Amino acid sequence: MNDKNNYKNSFVGKNCNIGKNVIIENTKIGNNCKIGNNVFLKSTNIGNNSIIEDNSIIGYSTISGHYYDKNTLKENYTNVNTQNYRVIIGNNVLIRTGVVIYFDVNIAQNCWINHNAIIRENVAILEDSTIGSNTICENNVSIGKRCAIHNNTMICAETLIESFVFIGPGVIFTNNSPIGHLRNVPSTIRGAKLRLGCAIGGGCTICPGVEIGQEAIIAAGAIVTKDIPLRTIVAGNPAKKIKDVGEESLIKENFHKQYGI
Amino acid sequence: MNDKNNYKNSFVGKNCNIGKNVIIENTKIGNNCKIGNNVFLKSTNIGNNSIIEDNSIIGYSTISGHYYDKNTLKENYTNVNTQNYRVIIGNNVLIRTGVVIYFDVNIAQNCWINHNAIIRENVAILEDSTIGSNTICENNVSIGKRCAIHNNTMICAETLIESFVFIGPGVIFTNNSPIGHLRNVPSTIRGAKLRLGCAIGGGCTICPGVEIGQEAIIAAGAIVTKDIPLRTIVAGNPAKKIKDVGEESLIKENFHKQYGI
Amino acid sequence: MNDKNNYKNSFVGKNCNIGKNVIIENTKIGNNCKIGNNVFLKSTNIGNNSIIEDNSIIGYSTISGHYYDKNTLKENYTNVNTQNYRVIIGNNVLIRTGVVIYFDVNIAQNCWINHNAIIRENVAILEDSTIGSNTICENNVSIGKRCAIHNNTMICAETLIESFVFIGPGVIFTNNSPIGHLRNVPSTIRGAKLRLGCAIGGGCTICPGVEIGQEAIIAAGAIVTKDIPLRTIVAGNPAKKIKDVGEESLIKENFHKQYGI
Repeated sequence: MNDKNNYKNSFVGKNCNIGKNVIIENTKIGNNCKIGNNVFLKSTNIGNNSIIEDNSIIGYSTISGHYYDKNTLKENYTNVNTQNYRVIIGNNVLIRTGVVIYFDVNIAQNCWINHNAIIRENVAILEDSTIGSNTICENNVSIGKRCAIHNNTMICAETLIESFVFIGPGVIFTNNSPIGHLRNVPSTIRGAKLRLGCAIGGGCTICPGVEIGQEAIIAAGAIVTKDIPLRTIVAGNPAKKIKDVGEESLIKENFHKQYGI
Repeated sequence: MNDKNNYKNSFVGKNCNIGKNVIIENTKIGNNCKIGNNVFLKSTNIGNNSIIEDNSIIGYSTISGHYYDKNTLKENYTNVNTQNYRVIIGNNVLIRTGVVIYFDVNIAQNCWINHNAIIRENVAILEDSTIGSNTICENNVSIGKRCAIHNNTMICAETLIESFVFIGPGVIFTNNSPIGHLRNVPSTIRGAKLRLGCAIGGGCTICPGVEIGQEAIIAAGAIVTKDIPLRTIVAGNPAKKIKDVGEESLIKENFHKQYGI
Repeated sequence: MNDKNNYKNSFVGKNCNIGKNVIIENTKIGNNCKIGNNVFLKSTNIGNNSIIEDNSIIGYSTISGHYYDKNTLKENYTNVNTQNYRVIIGNNVLIRTGVVIYFDVNIAQNCWINHNAIIRENVAILEDSTIGSNTICENNVSIGKRCAIHNNTMICAETLIESFVFIGPGVIFTNNSPIGHLRNVPSTIRGAKLRLGCAIGGGCTICPGVEIGQEAIIAAGAIVTKDIPLRTIVAGNPAKKIKDVGEESLIKENFHKQYGI
């Protein structure tokens, strides 16, 4: 099966299934993994039982001037086998077709990254989280445990997403930077902060630097222009408070216990 | 031209043009078809005069827990040549580059599926319909005849779309399910129902389970939070009635006759 | 490195790096260029120091009935080396992975076309402009100098974008055409006109044929239903005037000088 593949300085574990037209460089693959056709892997450390599907590119070394090398990956990840891997993928991870993952990305166990998602440089995604198809996760984004981020969503640079957060399809984040480039106004990048267990409905737009409080709920299609207090439901353009979140819509206690949060 | 291709238990009709680096398994291709480069076909039955362009994956066998095998494909489709094909593609179908089509999908004659569209499991698309580029069609979606669904749109699971429906670019459907997963609220999936000949402008968001009446028109950017009566024009966030649909904006009688609807 | 590639009637300049599984037809590549893996190039003229990344398709010859051959490319571009190239890419251009570019496209020097962008037929993009990932640029679109168009945006056919324009992520343009197809209403295509230096925030929807005035600013999430005067700030659904644009938010004089605009 591997007759047309190219391996360079790489290690493949036991019982792996490698597709056709695959290129693997400076990479370690654990046991029981499946690598699809036309996959490119570079400087990546993949755990056991993980799947990388067709046409995905893992370990994309950008030439962008926007690249931030903040040395934020943990020692215990980056120093496996005396090599410095630039992408760390945990156990039981599913990466679907057409995904692009840049350097300095850490995807923890049980995460699912769906079709054509783009994960840019210096991004961490903690365990049990999912990223939707066609969703873009720009540089310097942090995503907590058990988050569900849906399809066709655009998470811009410097966004902070805590655990248990739900983001619906077609949500657009902004960070204000580019409008300033040609003008006499500051072009500071201000990412949004999404606190634990908040939920953002489909089709919302989130303005630069806003903080969405713990377990707040943003109704579908809302335009969030300012900070939203915790456990508040908002809707509309601009988003305004409708009512408080009821007890039944708070994150269940056993999830807090399960994840130690 | 086929020197690097891999065929397994497949049949290719007369006068076909097959690209490079193609993998074809358990598949039947009709006459006068064109298959692009780097295409993967599995358990697919393709009619005559159809085109599958580069990098497309047809017959994607998901490992998802979300997979529904409802045995809804019709007998006359699934039992061709004593084989059970899992994807049926009619005559004169155009599937552009980078498309992913899951198992148990039925695409009727003359349909166009544009670049990077994702069609998930158990979807039927009837004749003369088009799906836009980067548009996602989730599982258990039904699309009627002569529908036009534009680019960058997200049609979520369980959505019902009748014939003659127009959906503009960047429309986001929702079905309510995921917010409930971590909370004490029901997580029922409720897809929207789009009745015959309704039209949804670009950039709209459609809330879970709403019914949009026959020949209703939803203005661009509207947030549809409740059922819309037939032949009504609505706009805004939330969408409110502006006026009734005029005679000139109803589906022309000859289209009803042509399609027997 | 080129053992599996296919060249046909093409010329590759000095010091180029060509990936694997590449197909190149009737194409001229300048010096110091990098072509990634699984790239398809047809009838394309690429300048010096440019990069085409993995899985991109440049010179896509559509079979669409929507194809317009307006012969709008300038002679000095199309008659290089006595061949008529159908795609012209300047010097120092970066085209990221998964991009599709149709025929009769002209991308000037220093432009960046990001992941999975689709550029349809008869599009011109002038120098120093960027097109975001997953962004679609339909046919007959004209984009000026130093424009920044962000991710997940849909620019529909016949849109005119002048220089120094900023378009945020998830912006949806419309041109009215398809609703009319099955009805007794005219289906005229009317693209929006974006005048010099205007800025459109993330998540906006732009209605057919509107003109957005010079240096106007459209707030994030606004639905633009009518013409916006120059140097006006608007917001909401529908978009309404908030205030005038301040001096500090006009395009800086030195950019006008630098670009001769």
